[in-house]
Amino acid sequence: MSKLLRRGFQLAGLGGAVGMGYLLGQNGSHKSSLLSSFPALETVSAAAIQGSVMNITAPDVIPPPASNAPRISQIMRFGFPGLANIRALDDYVISYDTRNRVPYWVCEHLNDANVTRNPEVDRSQCIFHEDFSIHEFFRSENSDYKGSGFDRGHMAAAGNHGLNMRDCRQTFLLSNMAPQVGEGFNRGKWNELEKYCRKKARQYANVYVCTGPLYLPRRDDDGKLYVKYQMIGQNHVAVPTHFFKVVVSEANTGELELESFLLPNAYIENAVPLSTFYVSTDVIERASGLLFFDKISKKKFQKINGNKTGWF
Amino acid sequence: MSKLLRRGFQLAGLGGAVGMGYLLGQNGSHKSSLLSSFPALETVSAAAIQGSVMNITAPDVIPPPASNAPRISQIMRFGFPGLANIRALDDYVISYDTRNRVPYWVCEHLNDANVTRNPEVDRSQCIFHEDFSIHEFFRSENSDYKGSGFDRGHMAAAGNHGLNMRDCRQTFLLSNMAPQVGEGFNRGKWNELEKYCRKKARQYANVYVCTGPLYLPRRDDDGKLYVKYQMIGQNHVAVPTHFFKVVVSEANTGELELESFLLPNAYIENAVPLSTFYVSTDVIERASGLLFFDKISKKKFQKINGNKTGWF
Repeated sequence: MSKLLRRGFQLAGLGGAVGMGYLLGQNGSHKSSLLSSFPALETVSAAAIQGSVMNITAPDVIPPPASNAPRISQIMRFGFPGLANIRALDDYVISYDTRNRVPYWVCEHLNDANVTRNPEVDRSQCIFHEDFSIHEFFRSENSDYKGSGFDRGHMAAAGNHGLNMRDCRQTFLLSNMAPQVGEGFNRGKWNELEKYCRKKARQYANVYVCTGPLYLPRRDDDGKLYVKYQMIGQNHVAVPTHFFKVVVSEANTGELELESFLLPNAYIENAVPLSTFYVSTDVIERASGLLFFDKISKKKFQKINGNKTGWF
Repeated sequence: MSKLLRRGFQLAGLGGAVGMGYLLGQNGSHKSSLLSSFPALETVSAAAIQGSVMNITAPDVIPPPASNAPRISQIMRFGFPGLANIRALDDYVISYDTRNRVPYWVCEHLNDANVTRNPEVDRSQCIFHEDFSIHEFFRSENSDYKGSGFDRGHMAAAGNHGLNMRDCRQTFLLSNMAPQVGEGFNRGKWNELEKYCRKKARQYANVYVCTGPLYLPRRDDDGKLYVKYQMIGQNHVAVPTHFFKVVVSEANTGELELESFLLPNAYIENAVPLSTFYVSTDVIERASGLLFFDKISKKKFQKINGNKTGWF
């Protein structure tokens, strides 16, 4: 049985995901992080006395950068999920999948300031535009989405970058989009998840959000696992089967929480609670080929997917 | 109609590819390369007299590195197709796809020395082994292939690295493998293509080979394009629908030739000639999300897919 499936995660969409959150949260093993989680302090001995580089004590949790540090150092404070085709915008960072013409991931840093509605920022003035920083072979265009039946779904949400029009406009780059089911998803449960992140940003000191598409396999009639996804438009833009958000929230007291959501790119009933879509982070890591927030030991999280961890 | 299909390339496998080579070769547009292909010499004017940095004349074709230069500088002489998860082995370079547990691409440099059979190198002593340099979440294992019906298909061919046992052994890393149909493909037409590259290496001064998998869409009964591919084993190793090789051959006189092959991962009759699988490089570039040999202007090739170009 596959490792993904062994963890009890059904890939056939919404129905299978219901009720799995709790189970998956408990099973979240992350061997490599556990191994690297011992603070450097404990390893300082003779080397420290001799004044070697071992005398640098690593921080328990990487502190937020100074307020005048480059924005990217705050957004990417806890590590890059991957290093392919990185582009730092003014208020978010993207890694772009040239094969599928959608992001691999986008990372954002939210706080009270950038999620508070600025009346001078008028989202209706923002238009979706081609990203000319991407080679013409790998760029998506508005025409790819037209008539496809899919929304141009923001990965870095427009509502998270409302400090000024420049930031808001940058989220309308087509490199920040992936085809999403509109009603009941982009305009439904996904939007609710984005709002949930903004709500956390008002309550916590810092919220770090990593978002992206997934292409999950499912078992076919022949008993074998297949990945199958649509391609839209002349530029062959991939329609992901699922989307993820991995969210780290840092309280004013410094306590850290981790939440990982995995949603099917499908109509979802309003009544289904967001917690239905909690999964163990490593399910998303294996499926995406990415490692999230790997500068934080999983031991440091005092809550994972809404449950207090046993380590405190 | 899609850009891929507009170029006349049928994605439904072997049948569609037959006879398309010539057409595709003629249509190979590569706008960005054409724009950047003017030698720097022509742009040197006032700036040169003033001793600015413009006074550095760029070489017409990047010369081979000195014989004592690191091996990677020879292998990657004409550019990296992409920069994700690069690992330089002693005699080939790989970019690894952590999502699909197979390479994005591998690059090799062949010449008479490394393709000549060394009787001291015994391929039967080489065993397929896990690549422990890759995070455990993204590693393939021998068990993934066992009973799958697919061969562990070398991307960097073992026969291209026969100078010594160390080089040969390194091609047996599972990170260098992708699931291939055995009879009629890995042990058939694909093997013939590998031999063809070695034959060129005996005739030319330098041969540069870039190899990788593809996941091409095809039109389903509903009229829409879908990518569909199998995943094997507990680690979900992707079974590519197609494979490519892009080959640059440099003659002793310095003349350059370009060949781009695209083969379906399927049984192919022995009688079908290799030239059947010629496609324009940009078809592979769009489908893979990679750019091949982009340090050479396409204008520099005196032969493309076996045909003399019109530029000379």
